[in-house]
Amino acid sequence: MGMIGGGIDSFIGDVHRKAAAMDGMIELVCGAFSSSEGKSKRSGQALYLPENRCYGNFEEMFIEEKDRQVEERMDFVSIVTPNHLHFAPAKMALENGFHVVCDKPMTLTVEEAEELQALASTKGLLFALTHNYTGHPMVKQARAMIRNNELGKIRKIQVQYLQGWLTTSVEKTGHKQALWRVDPSKSGLGGALGDIGTHAENLVEYITGLALTEVAADLGKFGEGRALDDDGNILLRLENGAKGTMSFSQIAVGEENNLAIRVYGDKGSLSWHQENPNQLLVKWLDKSAQTFTPNSNNLHKQALAASRIPAGHPEGYLEAFANIYKNFAIHLNATSQNLKIEDSDYPTASDGVRGIKFIHAVVASDKNNSTWAKV
Amino acid sequence: MGMIGGGIDSFIGDVHRKAAAMDGMIELVCGAFSSSEGKSKRSGQALYLPENRCYGNFEEMFIEEKDRQVEERMDFVSIVTPNHLHFAPAKMALENGFHVVCDKPMTLTVEEAEELQALASTKGLLFALTHNYTGHPMVKQARAMIRNNELGKIRKIQVQYLQGWLTTSVEKTGHKQALWRVDPSKSGLGGALGDIGTHAENLVEYITGLALTEVAADLGKFGEGRALDDDGNILLRLENGAKGTMSFSQIAVGEENNLAIRVYGDKGSLSWHQENPNQLLVKWLDKSAQTFTPNSNNLHKQALAASRIPAGHPEGYLEAFANIYKNFAIHLNATSQNLKIEDSDYPTASDGVRGIKFIHAVVASDKNNSTWAKV
Amino acid sequence: MGMIGGGIDSFIGDVHRKAAAMDGMIELVCGAFSSSEGKSKRSGQALYLPENRCYGNFEEMFIEEKDRQVEERMDFVSIVTPNHLHFAPAKMALENGFHVVCDKPMTLTVEEAEELQALASTKGLLFALTHNYTGHPMVKQARAMIRNNELGKIRKIQVQYLQGWLTTSVEKTGHKQALWRVDPSKSGLGGALGDIGTHAENLVEYITGLALTEVAADLGKFGEGRALDDDGNILLRLENGAKGTMSFSQIAVGEENNLAIRVYGDKGSLSWHQENPNQLLVKWLDKSAQTFTPNSNNLHKQALAASRIPAGHPEGYLEAFANIYKNFAIHLNATSQNLKIEDSDYPTASDGVRGIKFIHAVVASDKNNSTWAKV
Amino acid sequence: MGMIGGGIDSFIGDVHRKAAAMDGMIELVCGAFSSSEGKSKRSGQALYLPENRCYGNFEEMFIEEKDRQVEERMDFVSIVTPNHLHFAPAKMALENGFHVVCDKPMTLTVEEAEELQALASTKGLLFALTHNYTGHPMVKQARAMIRNNELGKIRKIQVQYLQGWLTTSVEKTGHKQALWRVDPSKSGLGGALGDIGTHAENLVEYITGLALTEVAADLGKFGEGRALDDDGNILLRLENGAKGTMSFSQIAVGEENNLAIRVYGDKGSLSWHQENPNQLLVKWLDKSAQTFTPNSNNLHKQALAASRIPAGHPEGYLEAFANIYKNFAIHLNATSQNLKIEDSDYPTASDGVRGIKFIHAVVASDKNNSTWAKV
Repeated sequence: MGMIGGGIDSFIGDVHRKAAAMDGMIELVCGAFSSSEGKSKRSGQALYLPENRCYGNFEEMFIEEKDRQVEERMDFVSIVTPNHLHFAPAKMALENGFHVVCDKPMTLTVEEAEELQALASTKGLLFALTHNYTGHPMVKQARAMIRNNELGKIRKIQVQYLQGWLTTSVEKTGHKQALWRVDPSKSGLGGALGDIGTHAENLVEYITGLALTEVAADLGKFGEGRALDDDGNILLRLENGAKGTMSFSQIAVGEENNLAIRVYGDKGSLSWHQENPNQLLVKWLDKSAQTFTPNSNNLHKQALAASRIPAGHPEGYLEAFANIYKNFAIHLNATSQNLKIEDSDYPTASDGVRGIKFIHAVVASDKNNSTWAKV
Repeated sequence: MGMIGGGIDSFIGDVHRKAAAMDGMIELVCGAFSSSEGKSKRSGQALYLPENRCYGNFEEMFIEEKDRQVEERMDFVSIVTPNHLHFAPAKMALENGFHVVCDKPMTLTVEEAEELQALASTKGLLFALTHNYTGHPMVKQARAMIRNNELGKIRKIQVQYLQGWLTTSVEKTGHKQALWRVDPSKSGLGGALGDIGTHAENLVEYITGLALTEVAADLGKFGEGRALDDDGNILLRLENGAKGTMSFSQIAVGEENNLAIRVYGDKGSLSWHQENPNQLLVKWLDKSAQTFTPNSNNLHKQALAASRIPAGHPEGYLEAFANIYKNFAIHLNATSQNLKIEDSDYPTASDGVRGIKFIHAVVASDKNNSTWAKV
Repeated sequence: MGMIGGGIDSFIGDVHRKAAAMDGMIELVCGAFSSSEGKSKRSGQALYLPENRCYGNFEEMFIEEKDRQVEERMDFVSIVTPNHLHFAPAKMALENGFHVVCDKPMTLTVEEAEELQALASTKGLLFALTHNYTGHPMVKQARAMIRNNELGKIRKIQVQYLQGWLTTSVEKTGHKQALWRVDPSKSGLGGALGDIGTHAENLVEYITGLALTEVAADLGKFGEGRALDDDGNILLRLENGAKGTMSFSQIAVGEENNLAIRVYGDKGSLSWHQENPNQLLVKWLDKSAQTFTPNSNNLHKQALAASRIPAGHPEGYLEAFANIYKNFAIHLNATSQNLKIEDSDYPTASDGVRGIKFIHAVVASDKNNSTWAKV
Repeated sequence: MGMIGGGIDSFIGDVHRKAAAMDGMIELVCGAFSSSEGKSKRSGQALYLPENRCYGNFEEMFIEEKDRQVEERMDFVSIVTPNHLHFAPAKMALENGFHVVCDKPMTLTVEEAEELQALASTKGLLFALTHNYTGHPMVKQARAMIRNNELGKIRKIQVQYLQGWLTTSVEKTGHKQALWRVDPSKSGLGGALGDIGTHAENLVEYITGLALTEVAADLGKFGEGRALDDDGNILLRLENGAKGTMSFSQIAVGEENNLAIRVYGDKGSLSWHQENPNQLLVKWLDKSAQTFTPNSNNLHKQALAASRIPAGHPEGYLEAFANIYKNFAIHLNATSQNLKIEDSDYPTASDGVRGIKFIHAVVASDKNNSTWAKV
């Protein structure tokens, strides 16, 4: 694995590296960790990389790595830069034959996202998008139960992703994470919408297996002087006639990372909360409520496969994130041996395109006084 | 107290009687418990009432009670009939000088609600609406904290009221509670909307002290053949610029009585869940989260006044309901002695009018493809 | 019902009256509410009792009430005085043919408790002990599941009853509730042990249907200058070979009324917490955990019978307390009509004797350096 | 790092490797993964180790590693074998100048534990014991608050460690984890006592900073034919006069890994549950209860240092385990540079000796009919 972005002081770069390393299937071999060559090299050194594999920019990295021996060169690149710096390196990676792992949202525009999707497809290369919350065992259990029709026909969704860290205008104090997220030139059309709303959207589609077809959105910009949304409330319609609400916010004061989803079918319902991720509560039409936990009795195989340690030993954010990398690595290994795998089970370019379409539909609805917009 | 409706087998009649009796301030002295005279008398007898005060209809009750001696006759009437049978007895009660306690929603139309409000005002009579959830100590604590500006300026609301008992078409099996609720001639314009959506609306306005000004609504009719909504998703806007979502449902399979609210200010936020009503969770911008409980340290006086027993001894639905009656009785006593009271703290005709306006706005928005409608 | 004790300002007197009144089966007709005649009369007046039925002492009450007409006189007496004032009025009540409801612990000595038990039996009179926590629907569900062998053979118990209100020496500030509880002449051998430890002991025996046979106890007196325990830790052995722990305290700072029990069989286990009483969590050897709630699917009839309102509408302390009175009243009615009832389901003199034996065994073990003592 | 034990199929070996690797400070360079040379080599290969550093036994490993160049050879050894195989390799490691990380309980006898402690001290080598639960941020917050006297004088402890996986006699079905744990020749004097009871003991002493001085224990052997305890109930006394209970079990059916502790001072109390490790609930004498979370407001520096990712992103078992290795590695680095560090903050040989003394005291008390035994 090579990495683009994620230099010293980057939160998400460290997360990606820990996640990629966790199962001993992926080794970091090179990186363009910063647009400053000096910082990139310092970052690489701190990670015990040889100096000649710490590149000053991604173009150089692709060119040099391409010429290395197969056994030595990176297999794939992991792109962990801010949103506006996803498209160019991803495109160049694919053009040069490297598989891609990319942070979300995939790109700034639908056209870019579709171009990457098409390119990966044409080249026969893998493209993973790190919608990390789909990596939790109990999220996989939820998806498997619905796919297996245990909840019946889905009727109703509630999803929320609430944070409070932008309650005050911390970007004015130079807060690095905040600065680029409130800047349209770096974040794209969506603020909180792109940063966390897309996680909520992806979680709905991943768990239910249903496409969001229409949204009616009311975005808020509560922080003084913000150009992008820091809060949103959305009505949802799904392809099968189900309806729902989404609420996301980065000004929900006191909330840390309160991502939660409830799905109601006509036979049963489920709820899952990211802050207590090792429980899946399922309620039934005519039975007592049940609580499922990782590695416990009666789970679907996808949930079991996503658990590393015995029941009752909590797994968290990093382990779920690592499941994206693990399933990607398994797929990569299979592909390199020309094997097919039944269900690769990680988010792909297709999820990325959906996310960008969602962002655009929400913004369009909001601008049009919350009238329904097609996703 | 006299009662209209609430005969044998009525769930809500029994609740009203237990709630009214709890604090020893109110005595049931007569009733027109059913439109069948026989059933009314049997119901009254089971309640140890003398036969001559078990009336065959409410008209008769008002006429006869009016002629009784002051110390003997009922002071006020409690109306616990289905929605379509609120207006006529309430109007006649007021016209005959009786104070009124009325179940919600107040009436079928805005005009009726406003007529009752005006009549009560003109006659100088009290009118309580049993939005019982406002009776919980922790709801009163929430309201007092916001009124005291502890949470700062309110920005965001999430409210939900989820039940699952209409998941299947139980009305087709003769289910008595279901039958009138799915019938527009008895329920009015709203199904779940009127039955539980109005509780959610009232809770928002009671806790925040802010008026809902606009709604964009998407109602669902998931039960086969239903004429009224059994599910709804609504975008909310409040008078001060706050935004939010409301979700209510009676087809949320597995849910029992999941009413919950979250309110976010710019200094702090709170959340309260009806199914675990003795906790109020408050999160802060820069302090650890706190949990308040009834009769515990540092509560506002309104919350303390609403608690009957020591901290840690749970109070529930009946106790909260009883608080409506208790505060009404306190006001009634004060009024009868020509005393003024600072804050009567129970829902009134004004809340009733708001509820009916809310129902009409939601239905209008839903019919108009979810465009914003003024409340 | 006549009442002994429970005058103005008494917490528990008000609770008993509300509980007794809740189901409309019991009417308060007289009382000796205080050892001060004036206070007794003022208390009775505040309860709308006629002056001639507010007695200055219990002896007078029994004598006068006995002479009243059957339809007018009290059926039974409710004794809500401090512990040292249970025996004498209970004995006199039984001798004069009145049924008894008595607060716990029953008496100060085993001999007194056994004398009352024998007297009630000889006279054919009912004797209820208000171990109110057994009135919760989910406690009844727990008992019914174990009785039905759903959890298999019981192996392990954990029970705790934790309060913090005696953390500091509030008795030195004149705190009325505290004063008599820390006084051996009024409380008996046990402090927290008698006040709340006996509730824990009774809950174990009620839920499991098994007798505690041995205890090894280590009592604490943490409050400065206290003569009685304010904290206790106990090893438990049950008649069937099960083992366990009990922990109770009134110096567990921050705790309100944290009574909780866990029972482990060889097929399943359950846990119940008084502060959130409307959930019973059941875990299984080979199935997912289940949560039961009052009035929901698949409950045993005893749990259903103890629920008043629909699932999801919380019932609390008063409702559970009222279930003791309700079941006592049902039994009384049946008895007065010479009917037998299958399962009277309220705590009796037999539970009272067990409680006093438990107190004595715990104190004996503690004095003997925590060696095992037989209950 | 070299590893002893932890071959293919070992649960705990994989955990140790993931934990050691997480922060990029420790590299696995060799191992004696199994007493079967073939299995050791296969295990090492699967971990990408060169064949010549996969040893057939630990003696060989120490001899060969000792002769390697400093920059290449292992710095320390991690011992993850069953209990009876801790002493010999730990002793040989220390004798040959290698630092040691060792799984708990440290040894089978107090003499062995003290010998290792003395040897490490004499040689100036580090010795870490993997009481992994002390690695949780909220456990560190708990310890820091008590050390800082925020809870006042500690009076009462409740600790439990409940599992259900030995409810049935799974050892008879060949269950590998169960087989050695129920075998006194491999586990030592304690069954569940040594396996999980020592974690509970260590957690009490780590959080409170107080030594357990006396125990009165009642052990159970519920599984048919078991020679060692699978359940235990213990009264605790601490050096400062505090009292408490410990309950541990591996036959607590339905429990997964329910380790929990409550500590009561005279100013405040705290509770922490391993299955939901990212919350620390603190209750106060005269303020509302507070909930602390990792990386949130107002934490002590030790808790902050133990958190890797932002508040609301759950960390779990592996991250806490990794904190033991991380702090050990920091200490090792400091030591190798002859630097002193203020607070090394990981469990050491001293904790190991305490654990073995605890096991022996508990067994002695149990054999002596639960009389108090000194730890």
